[in-house]
Amino acid sequence: MTKVLRLRTDDRVVLFNGRGGLAEGFIQNIDSTAINFVALEDPKLVIPQTPQWHIFSAFGSLKGGRADWLVEKCIELGASSVIHLLTERSSTLSDNRVERLQRVILAAAKQCQRLHEMKLNHPMKINKLIPLVAKSKQSFIAIAEATPLVSALTSTTKEPNGLIIVGPEGDFTEKEVNLITEAGATAVGLGPHRLRVETATIAILATLTLWSDSQQTTNSDARQNSDYPVG
Amino acid sequence: MTKVLRLRTDDRVVLFNGRGGLAEGFIQNIDSTAINFVALEDPKLVIPQTPQWHIFSAFGSLKGGRADWLVEKCIELGASSVIHLLTERSSTLSDNRVERLQRVILAAAKQCQRLHEMKLNHPMKINKLIPLVAKSKQSFIAIAEATPLVSALTSTTKEPNGLIIVGPEGDFTEKEVNLITEAGATAVGLGPHRLRVETATIAILATLTLWSDSQQTTNSDARQNSDYPVG
Repeated sequence: MTKVLRLRTDDRVVLFNGRGGLAEGFIQNIDSTAINFVALEDPKLVIPQTPQWHIFSAFGSLKGGRADWLVEKCIELGASSVIHLLTERSSTLSDNRVERLQRVILAAAKQCQRLHEMKLNHPMKINKLIPLVAKSKQSFIAIAEATPLVSALTSTTKEPNGLIIVGPEGDFTEKEVNLITEAGATAVGLGPHRLRVETATIAILATLTLWSDSQQTTNSDARQNSDYPVG
Repeated sequence: MTKVLRLRTDDRVVLFNGRGGLAEGFIQNIDSTAINFVALEDPKLVIPQTPQWHIFSAFGSLKGGRADWLVEKCIELGASSVIHLLTERSSTLSDNRVERLQRVILAAAKQCQRLHEMKLNHPMKINKLIPLVAKSKQSFIAIAEATPLVSALTSTTKEPNGLIIVGPEGDFTEKEVNLITEAGATAVGLGPHRLRVETATIAILATLTLWSDSQQTTNSDARQNSDYPVG
């Protein structure tokens, strides 16, 4: 069962380019190879809204479409970028897989109508990650039995921006964990269950996204209150 | 690259049956067709720990392995049961698919070493769900632009048990939403993004699981404080 939306001459449409560009206009004419689109106003550039979560996940060795799935769900949940982290216990990412993931990203961005495509960055080694952690206002690294993520959140009042770091199957080495936490990442626990790499990544991102959502509401309530002071 | 753990005669092992039964013992002998296991003590029955989230998700029309994935992630994140909800806009679930999902559940339960298998219940109509919602101390239904989930959580102090209800592609009808919320379900929003059925289900479950995790820590801190009063 396929649903098709038929567009005709003179129909109003909004085009977007996946990098925040938006143009409203109409279809002037249609021939067998292309349509002519007439913009009714100058293209607008929409600035990305918070939250801005950058995912560093050692997903290179995930099999059976698990990496595709990870990337697709990161897009749906609004991640800004996804980077395959190269660790002692995770392999490289082949060029084939990068191309495949790019196709997944394009399809998923269309599906959920994101104005800003998520970036799939080049695979990165831990030593390149360290300066990013040091520079970032906040970053979270998934570690078994660390402070539960939600407790770590309620004790901070920071913006919904930062890095989410998840290790490979078999986990980070102790040395890698030390490097990352010494650079300033907060170790966070993910509950009593053993989660796969992709599940841990999505669980953190979903929780941070839904937490941001409640913070934004709280903040706008607060703003509203200051606009309309009582007493 | 396959990892194999070789077990030999006299090795100590713990067996579990997926229904909370646990038996510790050792391998007495091995022949080409079977092993003999000798229990060292009576089998124990482990009572399920909280949280106990029961998932009602209209996933029947999900294609391309999305339902498999939903069920697998529900297991990893510790859901107690998953039920395909039959709504006006979602189709039935064929027997073939039920069998397939049962295989997914068994494989996933082994992978994450859950002592209690998650139940895949029979598909259920909304009119059967209503009395369950009415009886349940808490239930959450995903509705666009409702109070953000995390805000709804912080204003309650209830136990980490209850129902998670997610509609089909194309959403519940207004009548269905009214029936479910009038029975007592709390409408919760899931942030600014458009989430697929399986993503919405997992986002709620992950957030509730990680929230429960922080509550349990808080509660055990509280218990510890009352055991060791200060001042």
